[in-house]
Amino acid sequence: MQKTSQLKQMLNSKKLEFILEAHDGLSGKIVEEAGFKGIWGSGLAISAAMGVRDNNEASWTQVLDVIEFMSDATSIPILLDADTGYGNFNNVRRLVRKLEQRQVAGMCIEDKLFPKTNSFINSEQQPLAEIEEFAGKIKSAKDTQEDPDFCVVARVEAFIAGWGLAEALRRAEAYYQAGADAILMHSKIPSADQILSFMEEWKDTCPVVIVPTMYYKTPTKIFEEAGVSLIIWANHMLRSSIQAMQTTAAQIYIDQSLVYVEDKIVSVKEIFRLQNAEELKQAEKVYLPTVSVGVR
Amino acid sequence: MQKTSQLKQMLNSKKLEFILEAHDGLSGKIVEEAGFKGIWGSGLAISAAMGVRDNNEASWTQVLDVIEFMSDATSIPILLDADTGYGNFNNVRRLVRKLEQRQVAGMCIEDKLFPKTNSFINSEQQPLAEIEEFAGKIKSAKDTQEDPDFCVVARVEAFIAGWGLAEALRRAEAYYQAGADAILMHSKIPSADQILSFMEEWKDTCPVVIVPTMYYKTPTKIFEEAGVSLIIWANHMLRSSIQAMQTTAAQIYIDQSLVYVEDKIVSVKEIFRLQNAEELKQAEKVYLPTVSVGVR
Amino acid sequence: MQKTSQLKQMLNSKKLEFILEAHDGLSGKIVEEAGFKGIWGSGLAISAAMGVRDNNEASWTQVLDVIEFMSDATSIPILLDADTGYGNFNNVRRLVRKLEQRQVAGMCIEDKLFPKTNSFINSEQQPLAEIEEFAGKIKSAKDTQEDPDFCVVARVEAFIAGWGLAEALRRAEAYYQAGADAILMHSKIPSADQILSFMEEWKDTCPVVIVPTMYYKTPTKIFEEAGVSLIIWANHMLRSSIQAMQTTAAQIYIDQSLVYVEDKIVSVKEIFRLQNAEELKQAEKVYLPTVSVGVR
Amino acid sequence: MQKTSQLKQMLNSKKLEFILEAHDGLSGKIVEEAGFKGIWGSGLAISAAMGVRDNNEASWTQVLDVIEFMSDATSIPILLDADTGYGNFNNVRRLVRKLEQRQVAGMCIEDKLFPKTNSFINSEQQPLAEIEEFAGKIKSAKDTQEDPDFCVVARVEAFIAGWGLAEALRRAEAYYQAGADAILMHSKIPSADQILSFMEEWKDTCPVVIVPTMYYKTPTKIFEEAGVSLIIWANHMLRSSIQAMQTTAAQIYIDQSLVYVEDKIVSVKEIFRLQNAEELKQAEKVYLPTVSVGVR
Repeated sequence: MQKTSQLKQMLNSKKLEFILEAHDGLSGKIVEEAGFKGIWGSGLAISAAMGVRDNNEASWTQVLDVIEFMSDATSIPILLDADTGYGNFNNVRRLVRKLEQRQVAGMCIEDKLFPKTNSFINSEQQPLAEIEEFAGKIKSAKDTQEDPDFCVVARVEAFIAGWGLAEALRRAEAYYQAGADAILMHSKIPSADQILSFMEEWKDTCPVVIVPTMYYKTPTKIFEEAGVSLIIWANHMLRSSIQAMQTTAAQIYIDQSLVYVEDKIVSVKEIFRLQNAEELKQAEKVYLPTVSVGVR
Repeated sequence: MQKTSQLKQMLNSKKLEFILEAHDGLSGKIVEEAGFKGIWGSGLAISAAMGVRDNNEASWTQVLDVIEFMSDATSIPILLDADTGYGNFNNVRRLVRKLEQRQVAGMCIEDKLFPKTNSFINSEQQPLAEIEEFAGKIKSAKDTQEDPDFCVVARVEAFIAGWGLAEALRRAEAYYQAGADAILMHSKIPSADQILSFMEEWKDTCPVVIVPTMYYKTPTKIFEEAGVSLIIWANHMLRSSIQAMQTTAAQIYIDQSLVYVEDKIVSVKEIFRLQNAEELKQAEKVYLPTVSVGVR
Repeated sequence: MQKTSQLKQMLNSKKLEFILEAHDGLSGKIVEEAGFKGIWGSGLAISAAMGVRDNNEASWTQVLDVIEFMSDATSIPILLDADTGYGNFNNVRRLVRKLEQRQVAGMCIEDKLFPKTNSFINSEQQPLAEIEEFAGKIKSAKDTQEDPDFCVVARVEAFIAGWGLAEALRRAEAYYQAGADAILMHSKIPSADQILSFMEEWKDTCPVVIVPTMYYKTPTKIFEEAGVSLIIWANHMLRSSIQAMQTTAAQIYIDQSLVYVEDKIVSVKEIFRLQNAEELKQAEKVYLPTVSVGVR
Repeated sequence: MQKTSQLKQMLNSKKLEFILEAHDGLSGKIVEEAGFKGIWGSGLAISAAMGVRDNNEASWTQVLDVIEFMSDATSIPILLDADTGYGNFNNVRRLVRKLEQRQVAGMCIEDKLFPKTNSFINSEQQPLAEIEEFAGKIKSAKDTQEDPDFCVVARVEAFIAGWGLAEALRRAEAYYQAGADAILMHSKIPSADQILSFMEEWKDTCPVVIVPTMYYKTPTKIFEEAGVSLIIWANHMLRSSIQAMQTTAAQIYIDQSLVYVEDKIVSVKEIFRLQNAEELKQAEKVYLPTVSVGVR
């Protein structure tokens, strides 16, 4: 099955599904090997890995290059966190074509303004996009895609920006009407109240995606019963890698030696396995001259 | 002091110095914060992070883009692991210009053939570059650099390819004569014998750099006494991040929840701190209109 | 002299100076060989050469890659047509750092909104940026640059958007106060009236740059007497190349032969000369082994 | 019909077909508008347009970026001049995947060594690739492609390197056996003798492609009768654009005015037409809010 169809099916299935953040080809592969059926190409994690801020400091094609590596390294669908679509509807159209070429299964765009600010920073001061303008983006994306299963997820930032349920519902409805395959309802309070109040009103209108970074203590079962389709674990690969790298760097720095680190980290062979070095070794037997001296 | 001068000083100081691998802007920043005075821009780690193999599957400009982010995110010198220089002397000349533009302090090139294979894979079958041809690369690099302190480190793969001390010395001498600022003598046996035999003969001819990935059990003091200038901890940030991400992904997959992970990983705020989100917040006060509504 | 200082001097000299459009490394080199002292890195021409529209369809780093090739291929200053700065003040800060790394001498930013539309299309309907917001961009650029001679030219679109002299002056003054090194006063009417009315009021406040694409019939002497500092011939290399390529393609298509084309176009040798193939030939003598067989 | 199938059909048809060089999206579009059924993505022209040499100074992904713009801007098949494949068989495999993603119809690889030198420069001194090694590249490409109609053209440089007909035939046969969809037999003498002698022996084994840059005086009819499948006009768009730009730049420089140039070049409107600005204007009516003020 196409990656797009896999993602679409995850959104539309009655079962609650889960995808985990990745920020490069390697983390994407690890997410896949862990058993996950999909990857969240997180804008925050990708920008942080690059060493820049989550404010569109990296250009959209620099993000695209990362996603291309990630898509090449994995066989499960990627949902790209595409911020605001990096401009207006015309930029969104171009983005959709580029993502389809790279076998990215879908994109999530949010109703904020370009350049964006992360939703967990100064969020109340962030103005939202006009509903009609954002709906135009969604419509243009849906009209552009060639593969009918490419997924456009519309992220509603109403709660994040300090608005209430009415505005969240009004936006969700408009984006659904514009053609969104799913609504990502974002919330940053430490409880699930906003999400659950939305789910109660929204019912089955279309699939709902959530990101429980801040309300992670709510049992998953609650969201399942509320009818949520997809949960995004949005930044935990990056956060665990930072934790590990800070610890390892500190240890090596103090010890001026690797001896206390070696056993706590994977082997060099494990890197080679993740890179699939073995496939190349086999291919060399097929495609390289049998007696090759200096002409690799 | 310029980053180039910092690196040159590390090579030429009588003190044994240490640099640690990084593979993107974020890991580079963590290396710096841990106290290290320099970064090893590892070809293995960068390719692995991208999700490709250490066989020049990524183009040299794709590696350059990663190194540019790393250089922007850090204030300590980066020594780039530039494989074979990605072609012949003319490619090396172009590379030097591009690295200088991006404030990369130096590059290490190795006497293998393009496209390269990682030194820990099938190493005995890997043909080496002709000495004269490789010396030409070094000379062209030194003639090209505009900043006199840009460092060219010549990596000798003689031991790796199964040759003995005589060939290692012959190559080291030729590369030194061609202008190399330091010799990286590589070895993949689990003891320091090859390195120490080389150091005994080489004496103080020019600075020596080593990569004790395989002979990490040898106490650092031994290398210090032998006169080594710089030790590269070559891939341990990547390996610790893989370890952590595999563990975290497995945990979240099984739990279908973040509760058992949250306390073991850094906070979202720590990501923001590493991205220096605070600086932007302050800058917005200076450069954005005081009453901005919807016109960011 | 640095490229930045050369451009700054052109802006500040009492003499009227001229720069010509280029859209890639080759056209940049031709501009330089023709005798021009500077190059206009035209957003319209660069996007058209790529085959996309002048609406920020190419990302800012894709434009940057073109400008880097152009800067490498030439030794005269480039003034980049940087549209709106590709976002807000923070994107502008990043852009300035990237341009300085690539030895681009200056940038021109315009007081429109991202994504931009070319000034000759639907111009009356194009909203302008808020003055305070645009002044913040200029100020942030000036605060960011490390080379004091890097030039920030502020392009006023007031006339283009249908506003009168008062608004043009108000904006020019605000941008000058914010630190702009020069004002580019744009006009699209087929006479020089708007420009001359502005010059009369503006006097010597700071250097003025103009783009007489539409009012090209006005003798250059008039602008010289009015005190204009720099004239940009903004798109004529591209337009002449289109003319020639359309003619050549049509001819070859009809003839199914090159015989009627060969004498009207430069030789293959002229391409090699423009690429400086000779330098490489000489360098190969220096850096390649004397008897190289199969090990380039 | 897919672009790949169009190209394959051109190669296999009994009719002599023609493709013309392009070096960016714009020139590609002009080739298409002139009526040509295909485009030659020339390595020489693309590198020259960038301002670098035809010696793999630009990385393969930088070439890929140009080809992606060209492919997006056109609807006829592109045959990419992919030099040696930019490395060994493994680099070729990666290239094929990247080209297919970008809807590039085929690639031509040549039996020289990386980094390459243009065939018209010092050609007798250029060593050729080992036959077995190059055949391995072809085989790996054919095994990699997902679309059965993606075309791999094998370029034989035997005549160029000073070898005779026997070597040319030996290589052509080996590459055909390895799976090449067509043989490009290159020749740089000013007569068609080498090509015709090859055609006489080769007969109908598989389609043959030629590049009559140097033997352009031979009437096309001769090649048609000899059974050639495809003629590449390899660099004439670039050469005509250089001619025109040099003339225009010189004229404007001397005149310090556009008046004598304006009538000899296309209008600004023609640029907009080539960019398809009209489509965006219509799309804005569909996707932008009807009363948009400052929130594009």
